[in-house]
Amino acid sequence: MSRVWNFSAGPAALPLAVLERARDELTDWQGSGASVMEQSHRGKRFITMAAQAEADLRALLDIPADHAVLFLQGGATQQFAQIPMNLAGEGDSADYIDSGHWSAKAISEATPYVKVNVAASAKAAGYRQLPPRESWQLDPRAAYVHYTPNETIHGVEFPDVPEVGEVPLVADMSSNILSAPLDVRRFGLVYAGAQKNIGPSGLVLLIIRRDLLQRAGRPMARIFRYADHAAADSMLNTPNTWGWYLAGLTFQWLLAKGGLAAMGAANRAKADLLYASIDGSGGYYRNPVDPAARSRMNVPFTLHDSALDAPFLQESEAAGLLALKGHKAVGGMRASLYNAVPLEAVEALVAFMRDFATRHG
Amino acid sequence: MSRVWNFSAGPAALPLAVLERARDELTDWQGSGASVMEQSHRGKRFITMAAQAEADLRALLDIPADHAVLFLQGGATQQFAQIPMNLAGEGDSADYIDSGHWSAKAISEATPYVKVNVAASAKAAGYRQLPPRESWQLDPRAAYVHYTPNETIHGVEFPDVPEVGEVPLVADMSSNILSAPLDVRRFGLVYAGAQKNIGPSGLVLLIIRRDLLQRAGRPMARIFRYADHAAADSMLNTPNTWGWYLAGLTFQWLLAKGGLAAMGAANRAKADLLYASIDGSGGYYRNPVDPAARSRMNVPFTLHDSALDAPFLQESEAAGLLALKGHKAVGGMRASLYNAVPLEAVEALVAFMRDFATRHG
Repeated sequence: MSRVWNFSAGPAALPLAVLERARDELTDWQGSGASVMEQSHRGKRFITMAAQAEADLRALLDIPADHAVLFLQGGATQQFAQIPMNLAGEGDSADYIDSGHWSAKAISEATPYVKVNVAASAKAAGYRQLPPRESWQLDPRAAYVHYTPNETIHGVEFPDVPEVGEVPLVADMSSNILSAPLDVRRFGLVYAGAQKNIGPSGLVLLIIRRDLLQRAGRPMARIFRYADHAAADSMLNTPNTWGWYLAGLTFQWLLAKGGLAAMGAANRAKADLLYASIDGSGGYYRNPVDPAARSRMNVPFTLHDSALDAPFLQESEAAGLLALKGHKAVGGMRASLYNAVPLEAVEALVAFMRDFATRHG
Repeated sequence: MSRVWNFSAGPAALPLAVLERARDELTDWQGSGASVMEQSHRGKRFITMAAQAEADLRALLDIPADHAVLFLQGGATQQFAQIPMNLAGEGDSADYIDSGHWSAKAISEATPYVKVNVAASAKAAGYRQLPPRESWQLDPRAAYVHYTPNETIHGVEFPDVPEVGEVPLVADMSSNILSAPLDVRRFGLVYAGAQKNIGPSGLVLLIIRRDLLQRAGRPMARIFRYADHAAADSMLNTPNTWGWYLAGLTFQWLLAKGGLAAMGAANRAKADLLYASIDGSGGYYRNPVDPAARSRMNVPFTLHDSALDAPFLQESEAAGLLALKGHKAVGGMRASLYNAVPLEAVEALVAFMRDFATRHG
């Protein structure tokens, strides 16, 4: 089969140009006679590539020098634990904003390490809107404020970075990092699993204000301590070298595409097209999210009759539209529109949806 | 450049057949129209592949049903911490055998979580021999006994599995797993970073006796708890899907090569050839390790005059022999002879060494 349009929520579509490059040099990288996966991470070739990847990421996001960049393992889920281990002292509390499935997971994994104060929650509203900023019960003595700018399952996204004063703001950007320009200076810590907008799974990116590196006081193994990873340039132990390499190729692809301003505009156009198609379907398709909170990255939608779900999935897959099945928590369909999903994919989806509605009236 | 003979200590050589297969299906896996890296780990295709990889590993190592197999992240270094977190209760002690660099690291990363009793150490002997079994000061109340069957830097390897009675035996097999048959029943826990004999870095394999899963009593996030990973078939969060896939291809390659008995014989022959070449060089090359403790996987050697190190490295690389530089802790050279390094590579190395000695008399 030739390539399909892939709407997977993650691990998600990667840029075809990145995959083709990785394929072409898979058995012989940079004329070394070996794969990038077969290189020592302490060798000159790998270190040069790794440093270039960090430099390209810094250029893309305009990361200031007082923020360190780490390439880690364990996924965002492990960071749910490592963040309080590193940023909170014994007895400290931290504020968490509960805006969906992933916020709730971050809260539950943090509880062994910090007193969690759920400063705001949209749970009672079925996570179909964001907790209004004016309702947040923030504690000025909190070790940090944690929130999830985009929720993949409920399809909600913060349109702006919330103002939280002097307390360090921590954001799980797994599903929307690099999708538009970001003012990194407003954050104490940004982290993201790679498998949506960065590269393959098994890599997690962490951007942390350097003064926060000194906070970790409790006893723990060095492998959990951000300061040790930063001091070792993320090579405290063998990193995920393949993931780092593919992330680097993706950063180069983003730069060549015009950077994050261009990606932001493209992602806006893609999401607008799909939401317009849903909203203009006369109720055939529905998205339940407050329009002010709708995600540009993950668009869940239902059909007016759930008996049509099975034929929709079957016919869409036959039409080369992959992974549209919604998460079981909300049902229906979901189209994820990360950076590597081009406008043509959304156009194909929208055309299919229109055609499907006509045929299954 | 065409492929070279790669003696890297890790990330190390992978079987060329595995790399070529991965290359050929990189943009379209199993006719799905997408890469294996672009598939949901919860999708049928990935789950089927993942289960087959586990089944193949179980066949290779004859893993009994009462041992669980986990595919995790974070490298063996993270396991240095997770093992005591999961196997030791508050106030427990554990016995550690110190046979080299990696044993020492395992000890230092464990200390925040368990009282470490160094039951035996070869440090005073420069790690050139193994601590004799009869000298081990084992504690029958220890939570477990930890040892490192092969040490990559000092090039020492235990020829047999030590008898430790009823206390669960824990082994860091990062550098010699799958290199010969192994009686998994003798172990409470075996773990291995993938980047030597299994696949790319960023994946760690863990084989644990199921009754030990229930030991973890202390408060910790679920992501650190083996029992939760086992209950979720290693999909508690998104696993390293690429690493899992390549590991599965490697397991198939090993089965096709005749399994671990065949690999054991091949690895014995490779190591014997290189050690014979060193020992027969009239002192031109030297390996300082007690012959009874010499590693089949990592062969460090020095030249009789360290001024020859630079030309040796330069000429060997020009001859298509990659990554022979020794670790700075011991100096000189090191040839790592993992499964994916064929006998032809060792023959080429031995021929080069003989030729070099002749030319540089």
